[in-house]
Amino acid sequence: MTARNAFYAQSGGVTAVINVSAAAVIETARKYPKEIGKVYAGRNGIIGALTEDLIDTSKESADNIRALRHTPAGAFGSCRYKLKSPEQNRREYERLIEVFKAHDIGYFFYNGGGDSADTCLKISQLSESLGYPITAVHVPKTVDNDLPITDCSPGFGSVAKYVAVSMREAGLDVASMAKTSTKVFVLEVMGRHAGWITAACGLAAERKGDAPQLLLFPEIAFEPQKFLAQVDATVKKHGFCAIGVSEGIKDTDGKFISESGLVDAFGHAQLGGVAPVIAGLIQRELKLKHHWAVADYLQRAARHIASKTDVEQSYALGKAAVEYAVKGMNGVMPAIKRLSSKPYRWEISAAPLSEVANREKKMPRDFITEDGFHITQKCRNYLQPLIAGEAYPPYVDGLPDYVRLKNVAVRKKLVEFKL
Amino acid sequence: MTARNAFYAQSGGVTAVINVSAAAVIETARKYPKEIGKVYAGRNGIIGALTEDLIDTSKESADNIRALRHTPAGAFGSCRYKLKSPEQNRREYERLIEVFKAHDIGYFFYNGGGDSADTCLKISQLSESLGYPITAVHVPKTVDNDLPITDCSPGFGSVAKYVAVSMREAGLDVASMAKTSTKVFVLEVMGRHAGWITAACGLAAERKGDAPQLLLFPEIAFEPQKFLAQVDATVKKHGFCAIGVSEGIKDTDGKFISESGLVDAFGHAQLGGVAPVIAGLIQRELKLKHHWAVADYLQRAARHIASKTDVEQSYALGKAAVEYAVKGMNGVMPAIKRLSSKPYRWEISAAPLSEVANREKKMPRDFITEDGFHITQKCRNYLQPLIAGEAYPPYVDGLPDYVRLKNVAVRKKLVEFKL
Repeated sequence: MTARNAFYAQSGGVTAVINVSAAAVIETARKYPKEIGKVYAGRNGIIGALTEDLIDTSKESADNIRALRHTPAGAFGSCRYKLKSPEQNRREYERLIEVFKAHDIGYFFYNGGGDSADTCLKISQLSESLGYPITAVHVPKTVDNDLPITDCSPGFGSVAKYVAVSMREAGLDVASMAKTSTKVFVLEVMGRHAGWITAACGLAAERKGDAPQLLLFPEIAFEPQKFLAQVDATVKKHGFCAIGVSEGIKDTDGKFISESGLVDAFGHAQLGGVAPVIAGLIQRELKLKHHWAVADYLQRAARHIASKTDVEQSYALGKAAVEYAVKGMNGVMPAIKRLSSKPYRWEISAAPLSEVANREKKMPRDFITEDGFHITQKCRNYLQPLIAGEAYPPYVDGLPDYVRLKNVAVRKKLVEFKL
Repeated sequence: MTARNAFYAQSGGVTAVINVSAAAVIETARKYPKEIGKVYAGRNGIIGALTEDLIDTSKESADNIRALRHTPAGAFGSCRYKLKSPEQNRREYERLIEVFKAHDIGYFFYNGGGDSADTCLKISQLSESLGYPITAVHVPKTVDNDLPITDCSPGFGSVAKYVAVSMREAGLDVASMAKTSTKVFVLEVMGRHAGWITAACGLAAERKGDAPQLLLFPEIAFEPQKFLAQVDATVKKHGFCAIGVSEGIKDTDGKFISESGLVDAFGHAQLGGVAPVIAGLIQRELKLKHHWAVADYLQRAARHIASKTDVEQSYALGKAAVEYAVKGMNGVMPAIKRLSSKPYRWEISAAPLSEVANREKKMPRDFITEDGFHITQKCRNYLQPLIAGEAYPPYVDGLPDYVRLKNVAVRKKLVEFKL
């Protein structure tokens, strides 16, 4: 058996811990020199494979690769670029094979969410469909926590921790000023179709009356009058009202409350700006002084307050992906299996990509209270271990010391390819 | 000499470290039992004094008072309530004296910004104006960093650290996705008239091309065409553009770019929502994919990433305030005096309140680059020590373990007072 090279790419929205999985893939691959030669990373994700823009990770020191464990965002660049099926765009798959052949790539590691799992599945079938032997393993990642089979998705725990911490802090701020100042605070968080991140805001509330008192989930149709009555009652009872709202809430007709009209490369509407809409509604109808915040990228890049559980799982999954690959397991994704919540115990098992791709895991209805405005104890039991533990990055001069790789390009061997 | 009681109140917008000063005042007062009896805190600030709603801090354990050092927001409640002058509203001052007499209050500690310093000054003159003997000392606090005389204001260093860390993290996120996704990111931060917080965003950029590439200060009139040309050039050169913008930027006519029309109790316009305006402008004129975030209260409540320097200074200033008071120094504010920047050394000296009240310290012009879009090295030298060091709170189950005081009320002795 001769060692073959590996290709690794980051796909879709980056997270605070996607580089932790990258470190795991590279460090683990270096432990299998008989099976795996070099790890080439795609510059800007799968686009790097198509354009033969490969990064030679063997040029990076062990220290720099280790520092990826505390560095957020995509160290090699990521992209939103969805491959069509081989039937629809055979040219792209033939190009991939051309690049893989030219650089002797026998392993494909794709670090992404549901759409990317579909791409990884198609790559895993290249041997069958186009006769190129390759072992493809998906490394899960998505702040949306909407991947099926796995108990949770790397990246989510850290966003969850960030929004819960932020809501607790802002809630204390509002509570202490409410007598004469702001009475309603709205925090908008990510989560296009699934309310997992919104739910995590709810962890900040431990006692009755704590912020947030209300949550608006994308799973529950937004009814303005019902909501306003809740806000009004909360302010009357507790003196203030803090609200966590998903960017993806919809009205009873299924229309997004805030729709910018833009569409991303996967065909999803690009959202943002629900918080001012909700705050404006409260201002108009209840005449209550309000403030609003939109966390946007701050939440998914917040490595400074990453969850230790999330960091550990991101590493373990990257490591497992390489171990599966060297065992010849193709078309799979390592998934988290929860063994118990208290104490929290988990293990990793392989999930077939055919069962992962293009499926969205929404919040179970019994994770949301009957009135639709908060999380249940069952949801808390699920979420709490995912935000447990701190994993602080090192600091220099008051700022996190995030690593920047050299990202040395592999010499090109092929003619140019137009995307 | 008989011990007299002390009154302590938090005023105006709360911060991540105002409770650190509260802890310092209470802990230091406990060390002077011959001079100071109990420390009574005003529930919801000065309103608590007017309505005789006093909190007996002697009912709180030493542990709980110590825990204030890591707890953000106002532990006793704060308010935006500006006292008029004794000439304009003699009734309020007579009521204060009535309450002070009833509870034998001989010391007044007011923890606030410029407007509050003015109130504290008026209280310090009560002995002269209305014959009530009291020693009034102001404890500085404002995230806006706009107090004169003191080198910096408690609360600012922690917001500065928060926005610099957030900008660095979000900047890495945008940079890694820019090839196919978001090319412009806008982060809106606080700072009504002074650009100190906006300037702190600039610390995130260490090398040419780092985020943020552009800053929009309230001190520099906003000129859309000039700005758009900078954004365009930055995206062409670096592939993306991250922008830090103050909530208080104005056009060349001095009109706020985003004005909600609301006015707070001090007569200031309540702002918010500049980021979507700027992002919309970029979308319309340059057709670049953008994202925006509004940090709002998240920034000033972010005790989880507070600056160690800020925490230390907040404590030292609260301690000094009590030491000044027991020495009989009236109408003063302990201020930070910078002795050197590298290494950072500082001491505390007393500033007369007459020189502090109602004066705003803006950014010196030479802290802003000539083109108006970034900070100079001189500004960096000033800011850097203020964000140095981490001072993490303790965590339980993944969330910061912030203390909640019992806030036991002192028995009322007087008739009700209508505000």
